[in-house]
Amino acid sequence: MDMYEIIKKKRDGNELTSEDIKYFVKNYTKGNIPDYQASALLMAIFFNKMNKAETLNLTNAMLKSGEEIDLSSINGIKVDKHSTGGVGDKTTLVLAPMVAACNLPVAKMSGRGLGHTGGTLDKLESIENFSIDLSKGEFIKNVNDIKLAVAGQTSNIAPADKKLYALRDVTATVDNISLIASSIMSKKLASGSDAIVLDVKVGSGAFMKTLEDAFELAKEMVDIGNGMNRDTMAIISDMDEPLGYAVGNALEVKEAVQTLKGHGPEDLVELCLSLGSRLLLLGKKVKNLEEGRKLLMSKIEDGSAFNKFKQFIKNQGGNVEQIENLDLLPKSNNVMHFKAKKTGYISQMNAEEIGRCALLLGAGRKTIESEIDMSAGIVLNKKKFEKIKKGEIIASLHGNDKDKLKDTLNRLEKIIKISSEKIGEKKIIYGTVDKDGIKKI
Amino acid sequence: MDMYEIIKKKRDGNELTSEDIKYFVKNYTKGNIPDYQASALLMAIFFNKMNKAETLNLTNAMLKSGEEIDLSSINGIKVDKHSTGGVGDKTTLVLAPMVAACNLPVAKMSGRGLGHTGGTLDKLESIENFSIDLSKGEFIKNVNDIKLAVAGQTSNIAPADKKLYALRDVTATVDNISLIASSIMSKKLASGSDAIVLDVKVGSGAFMKTLEDAFELAKEMVDIGNGMNRDTMAIISDMDEPLGYAVGNALEVKEAVQTLKGHGPEDLVELCLSLGSRLLLLGKKVKNLEEGRKLLMSKIEDGSAFNKFKQFIKNQGGNVEQIENLDLLPKSNNVMHFKAKKTGYISQMNAEEIGRCALLLGAGRKTIESEIDMSAGIVLNKKKFEKIKKGEIIASLHGNDKDKLKDTLNRLEKIIKISSEKIGEKKIIYGTVDKDGIKKI
Repeated sequence: MDMYEIIKKKRDGNELTSEDIKYFVKNYTKGNIPDYQASALLMAIFFNKMNKAETLNLTNAMLKSGEEIDLSSINGIKVDKHSTGGVGDKTTLVLAPMVAACNLPVAKMSGRGLGHTGGTLDKLESIENFSIDLSKGEFIKNVNDIKLAVAGQTSNIAPADKKLYALRDVTATVDNISLIASSIMSKKLASGSDAIVLDVKVGSGAFMKTLEDAFELAKEMVDIGNGMNRDTMAIISDMDEPLGYAVGNALEVKEAVQTLKGHGPEDLVELCLSLGSRLLLLGKKVKNLEEGRKLLMSKIEDGSAFNKFKQFIKNQGGNVEQIENLDLLPKSNNVMHFKAKKTGYISQMNAEEIGRCALLLGAGRKTIESEIDMSAGIVLNKKKFEKIKKGEIIASLHGNDKDKLKDTLNRLEKIIKISSEKIGEKKIIYGTVDKDGIKKI
Repeated sequence: MDMYEIIKKKRDGNELTSEDIKYFVKNYTKGNIPDYQASALLMAIFFNKMNKAETLNLTNAMLKSGEEIDLSSINGIKVDKHSTGGVGDKTTLVLAPMVAACNLPVAKMSGRGLGHTGGTLDKLESIENFSIDLSKGEFIKNVNDIKLAVAGQTSNIAPADKKLYALRDVTATVDNISLIASSIMSKKLASGSDAIVLDVKVGSGAFMKTLEDAFELAKEMVDIGNGMNRDTMAIISDMDEPLGYAVGNALEVKEAVQTLKGHGPEDLVELCLSLGSRLLLLGKKVKNLEEGRKLLMSKIEDGSAFNKFKQFIKNQGGNVEQIENLDLLPKSNNVMHFKAKKTGYISQMNAEEIGRCALLLGAGRKTIESEIDMSAGIVLNKKKFEKIKKGEIIASLHGNDKDKLKDTLNRLEKIIKISSEKIGEKKIIYGTVDKDGIKKI
């Protein structure tokens, strides 16, 4: 076998065999195939696409390129949730304790964020002394003990994907649905869960900007998951504006806690119920989605979801006092308000741009070495299509640098738009994908 | 400017500006742009093509990446011929002295061959003591003195093309007409001639396998040449079987000399007259092609073309005795004959395969370091569509290794086919391209 022939085959529109793909992934990971041949192949894939079999084979080869986590010593069905990422997405912080309170084990490996705000790990680390450095034994023991643990992802998960992603990132070969799907799924499938629920975001703050692309990506990922014999479902959810009201690490922990206590924003609650009921269904804790939603709601109402969160924070060394008294979480020295210049309806609130504003305030990492300001971020007061009066607060900006706060205020002028008429209706879930196909809502 | 944006632009089907292309070529040559980004761009070009302006800009940027030869101290219009390469192509050996005998200066820089047989330089070096290592001053003096010199190409001609070609070769991005055209023309235009006649080969032994591709390549090259203000014309000539009868270095010198003495094969003579008359026309030595052909024929008939060749060989140190007595040229120890197994007509004689047989016998280089056996090669006795009787010799194999000769005999069985009916007519020239467009014959 020869890399030149593999490139030529794909270039000429032919199907790569399982052997071709294994050869490429194995030898590229080992350094036997140079980057310039890999990038030529990736660009040929960009143009000629991959079919279902090729995508499955690529995923399989990448997941087998590194460590495969063995969760078999955790009792029960292990179900995992994965989001394609967005602004203000604190879903895991809410969903994990809700589901764990239903007695379904949640063994979550998570990454750090690069970009607008931190990832789940960064958000959790805004709680004093909280640690994500668990040994494999501790991780499994925690899940068996309290049904919930969150740990940093081991660096040896799907190294082929890591290397390929870095190359795609600098060769304009990221934007291919099959490559995106296999990249996400190779990591997810290596993490050892029995079933997977995917949250595919769509809109200005998401990787997928159109519904068509989002459904296509969801379909590819669900097909890969089921093709690898893991029950897999997906939800297509809105990321045209931030999820909930808070964007920023400690600010999001606060909103998550409020949600667990029954005072959550409508979109966040709905998303958690949609995802959570599917997790419970796949984990065989309920017979249908309706039953799942009811069970989850009951765990909010009786306080057990919130208690589970506190138990989880304590179990991983975090200061629970900050959860019981949210005022003890990191706070910025300055808060500035962005106010409406006219009366009307919010017509635009680009999530990606709001994420950039939060990053500017210190809530995210510009480079892998950047320090995050846990207290910084934005709290919205109004969201899309809501009525607003002249002079009313639209958003509060939290930060420790007055100049940056002023810059951010100016940026928001261009990002948040007000129209005289209400021009749309908020939608949270656009549809679902499972092994029976796509269902649009 | 940023390489990522340049790749993305081409990937998305947009036109690269002159600045984009200059930036890419300059920084890639300098090593500031990594191979993996260059190969991604090349693959995007493979799929989305380049238009006329982009191709011209790429050619210009590549030719300016290195040395541009200044031939202004040579008196008269400098006209150059370039062939896209084929098997048994000894055209330069015949054409150069014919044209020089018409008083048109021929300042030829040539390369060595890699593949079936040697290049023009290798062929000339089968003559004892012939040297292609001329200083720039000697080269120019020789042309001014006797109107003819052939030297090795300086290594600093279009280094960007050299680097890009090596990358294309291993990333399956060679087969794009615009990239091929700009690669050839960047080197040709850097060689300092005022006008160019291109010999674009088509058929089994050529880079272009179809007439359509050959005309397209010719058109692109002619457009580039004229776009750079050099009078440029092209001929599309047959390379479905070898040119002439001899394939192999000393064997081809012998055939070239016989041609200069008036006993050349029909196809070689016709090609030399077609190319030569165009060289004379562009060099303003004649008013039309017919006049050119007559003038060239007269130089064969009065012996001045042959004398020019001897003068040229002597001028560059070669042993002229070998030219006067061709039996003194290198000779193989063994000659084996490939004979017809039945009576009929030659129906197939794949030029590329015959070239490979010559290589097997030692006539070419397998790698850049290989030594050439100057005496080895194949002399055909019959060519396509000619009548042949059972037992008659089709080809004679010259070599110094009996096992290789036997292997080659066996290979020829599969390459040369005989049909009972005559299935076609030999064609030498398929058409021409000049600034007025394509003319098919």
